[in-house]
Amino acid sequence: MAKQERAVRTRQAVLVAAAEVIGERGYEAATIAEIIQRAQVTKGALYFHFPSKDALARAVIAEQTELLVPPPSESRMQDAIDFSHRVAEGLRTDPVLQAGTRIAVETTFDAEPLVPYQDWISIATGMFTEARDRGELLPAVNPAKAAEFFVAAYMGVQLFSLAASNRDDLHERIGQLWRHILPGLASPGAMSHLDPNGRRARQAA
Amino acid sequence: MAKQERAVRTRQAVLVAAAEVIGERGYEAATIAEIIQRAQVTKGALYFHFPSKDALARAVIAEQTELLVPPPSESRMQDAIDFSHRVAEGLRTDPVLQAGTRIAVETTFDAEPLVPYQDWISIATGMFTEARDRGELLPAVNPAKAAEFFVAAYMGVQLFSLAASNRDDLHERIGQLWRHILPGLASPGAMSHLDPNGRRARQAA
Repeated sequence: MAKQERAVRTRQAVLVAAAEVIGERGYEAATIAEIIQRAQVTKGALYFHFPSKDALARAVIAEQTELLVPPPSESRMQDAIDFSHRVAEGLRTDPVLQAGTRIAVETTFDAEPLVPYQDWISIATGMFTEARDRGELLPAVNPAKAAEFFVAAYMGVQLFSLAASNRDDLHERIGQLWRHILPGLASPGAMSHLDPNGRRARQAA
Repeated sequence: MAKQERAVRTRQAVLVAAAEVIGERGYEAATIAEIIQRAQVTKGALYFHFPSKDALARAVIAEQTELLVPPPSESRMQDAIDFSHRVAEGLRTDPVLQAGTRIAVETTFDAEPLVPYQDWISIATGMFTEARDRGELLPAVNPAKAAEFFVAAYMGVQLFSLAASNRDDLHERIGQLWRHILPGLASPGAMSHLDPNGRRARQAA
């Protein structure tokens, strides 16, 4: 195995272990020692890739967003809806995503608290901007403000679903979220073809 | 001081101390010992009123809701908007309310997690039902489902505002929340007279 390939594998092993431990214990209670043990790497190897627990947490969060962004289709609003359901499926099954939301909530009370939300807001702003350029949004909608609101509301809905059903009803609640906000976001022409429950993306994913 | 009056004062002192300590340290880290010290009551007096930390936390949450429900006006939707801004003002200034949201978020990961949301959902369901009966809602809206969505989204928005500005921008973000959801909730007739920023209730409160 080449040196570089080994480094990539080590980094990935640490990320998965960190996501699992943070997902199980929460960000504050998770220790570097347990992550090292779980990943079966040396302390030096972990610190080579991640100089601090904070850096590790950020990498876990960045990891979340990479695989879930859908390729552009003819409707960027439907892409945004589908994306939200893919994230929902990830929250139900993927320890990396589960860890990310715990980090976001728990570090809300600490310094630099917006970091965990930032990636999601960027993605949503991009999608809403493209949707606006294609005439899918109402003229009064500001894509950046709508994206901030959407990410905040989504965070609340997924926390509520976690409390209500351990996220069993998350897809349904995300559908409700879209049903409640689409009338204030989408143009009448777009409304007619949008499915708040997603384009079966979650089955296909 | 009559015995009953003393009991009421003791209970109130414990509630305020519990709210402060939970608000400062979070629910998990708050100890009965510190609450006793802060309230300047005996351990026996505290346990007489609240048999467990859990019971104390629930009382803190119930305390939140009592003073903030506005009397019915000619528009129950505007009452709901004003209520949400009064809660926002409480979240900015009142340790009892601040503690309540920490309890809701932190116990999301534990047993009986919906308890902290339940009072808010009941209040919102009642207001939305009365608004529907007065023709202020769109016919397709289900008041109970809308209330659950609203409470969940509100939780997310206030967490986001806490992260973004230590809740300095909470009124503005709650206004954005209403601007985004009113088109899917309110009838056209109601829309024309509703103010998403609240009827200056927060200045008057």
